[in-house]
Amino acid sequence: MSYPFLLGHGTQNDFVLLPDHDNTVHGRLSRDAWADRVRALCHRRAGLGGDGVLRVVRTKYVDPSQAGEAQWFMDYWNADGSVSEMCGNGIRVFARHLLLEGLVEPGAPVPVATRDGVKTISFTGAAGEDSSEVTVDMGTPKVLGTSAVTIGSSTWQARHVDVGNPHAVAFLDDGVGLEASGPVGPLTEEPSYDAGVYPHGVNIEFVQPLGPGHVAMRVHERGSGETRSCGTGACAVAVAVAVREGLRGRGEDVTCRVDLPGGTLTITWTTDDRLLMTGPAVLVAAGQTDL
Amino acid sequence: MSYPFLLGHGTQNDFVLLPDHDNTVHGRLSRDAWADRVRALCHRRAGLGGDGVLRVVRTKYVDPSQAGEAQWFMDYWNADGSVSEMCGNGIRVFARHLLLEGLVEPGAPVPVATRDGVKTISFTGAAGEDSSEVTVDMGTPKVLGTSAVTIGSSTWQARHVDVGNPHAVAFLDDGVGLEASGPVGPLTEEPSYDAGVYPHGVNIEFVQPLGPGHVAMRVHERGSGETRSCGTGACAVAVAVAVREGLRGRGEDVTCRVDLPGGTLTITWTTDDRLLMTGPAVLVAAGQTDL
Repeated sequence: MSYPFLLGHGTQNDFVLLPDHDNTVHGRLSRDAWADRVRALCHRRAGLGGDGVLRVVRTKYVDPSQAGEAQWFMDYWNADGSVSEMCGNGIRVFARHLLLEGLVEPGAPVPVATRDGVKTISFTGAAGEDSSEVTVDMGTPKVLGTSAVTIGSSTWQARHVDVGNPHAVAFLDDGVGLEASGPVGPLTEEPSYDAGVYPHGVNIEFVQPLGPGHVAMRVHERGSGETRSCGTGACAVAVAVAVREGLRGRGEDVTCRVDLPGGTLTITWTTDDRLLMTGPAVLVAAGQTDL
Repeated sequence: MSYPFLLGHGTQNDFVLLPDHDNTVHGRLSRDAWADRVRALCHRRAGLGGDGVLRVVRTKYVDPSQAGEAQWFMDYWNADGSVSEMCGNGIRVFARHLLLEGLVEPGAPVPVATRDGVKTISFTGAAGEDSSEVTVDMGTPKVLGTSAVTIGSSTWQARHVDVGNPHAVAFLDDGVGLEASGPVGPLTEEPSYDAGVYPHGVNIEFVQPLGPGHVAMRVHERGSGETRSCGTGACAVAVAVAVREGLRGRGEDVTCRVDLPGGTLTITWTTDDRLLMTGPAVLVAAGQTDL
């Protein structure tokens, strides 16, 4: 059976989108058959390739409790066939798709239902154009303590920030860069961390300050290794930067530009304690597959 | 501008196919603009992802001298935007596409023009089905001498086989496997070899004999590092196996099954000194892109 797909990415975090508006294309698969399909689609050689699958389905078929607030549900699955709540890069691509297809009203914020509740997406510039940026409200962070993160012979005191998932943010010393030949290294092995602080593992960010409100980072994601982008990681980094530079509590929004290997995200920590993440979202192809 | 594409693979060597029958879609791009497009299409995060691009164009527009023998030309480009002569995995996918689209006569061998001359492709089983296998005549090998190949503290005397490009085939000792924890290791660095024998570099195969006419292999490709499949590498391995086991000169074809990380290829070295490579070829998707 052939069915439609789209391919898209946000800062090179890439996704297979599967339109399934009325839950009839994929919705009736068994959990095992669906997980097999997700793995086949995401396989980078034998499939379409992606970090995950975003199924586009009307909310009423998946979570009627959210249907009053958001018509569309982002049914997000990781490439390994496991389910996931939310993805900050994925939801920008998802919302762009809704707009390009005329499935939501142009010019207004777009509510999207997820397993982590309804998220609101807005567009800067011409909303229908791939070149415009997309902003998503990522919720309220929790700033916690510090503990040691170690790679090889280098150890940092990393800030614990929770933005729905746990992050440890380590700042490099002045004059030290993120290159693989530096102390961060190639990140092919998992850094060690305090399992008492992070009993379920942790995403670890390494941050090079570049100037006021501007940093570069690399990220080691729990379960995935190094990736080219991590939306929640960029949020955690922006929070840690604001705390480190003493920028909170001045009665104004704090904005941080975060350069990742896959592109740039801009994070604003608002005075009402919300994180707004702004970045690109690009649809690159559409077609049919029978994977 | 949006244009059509297909995605396919042979033993997980994967390709973007671009129909451009009359040379009007991509044929008028400058060399630089075309190389940019190839790189964008093959990018595994921001593009469609692939080891290379196979442009499908009538031979008369590219190499009129071959047009009398083969109507279709496989215009093959590597993911990095460089041009390439031939690809044994790619040409199976290319020929399958021609057949599925009704561009060649079913039931007959398919001639395909390439920068390495006209190749002839045949199909086993139901030719139009993805499950049938595809056979390509890879030409005549040259069996040359042996020289040392080294990884870490392990050295092998590797057989030099030329099948249009150079290969060094190293056989593991009895009881030694190909796993990354073994002497072949993770293959993240280039093995060392005799630059006097291979002045332009060499593809290096590591071979574990599994039984008569049956081996497993891993390959380190010149310029690419380890890959999941290499058609010419499998051919070189089959030749080295036949030489090692003294199977040539008996007046019959010699067949070897070669298990690669991405799948299985079967190589027959015929009595008239041709290498016939048989393996899968799968089209997984078709669509439109504006990359």
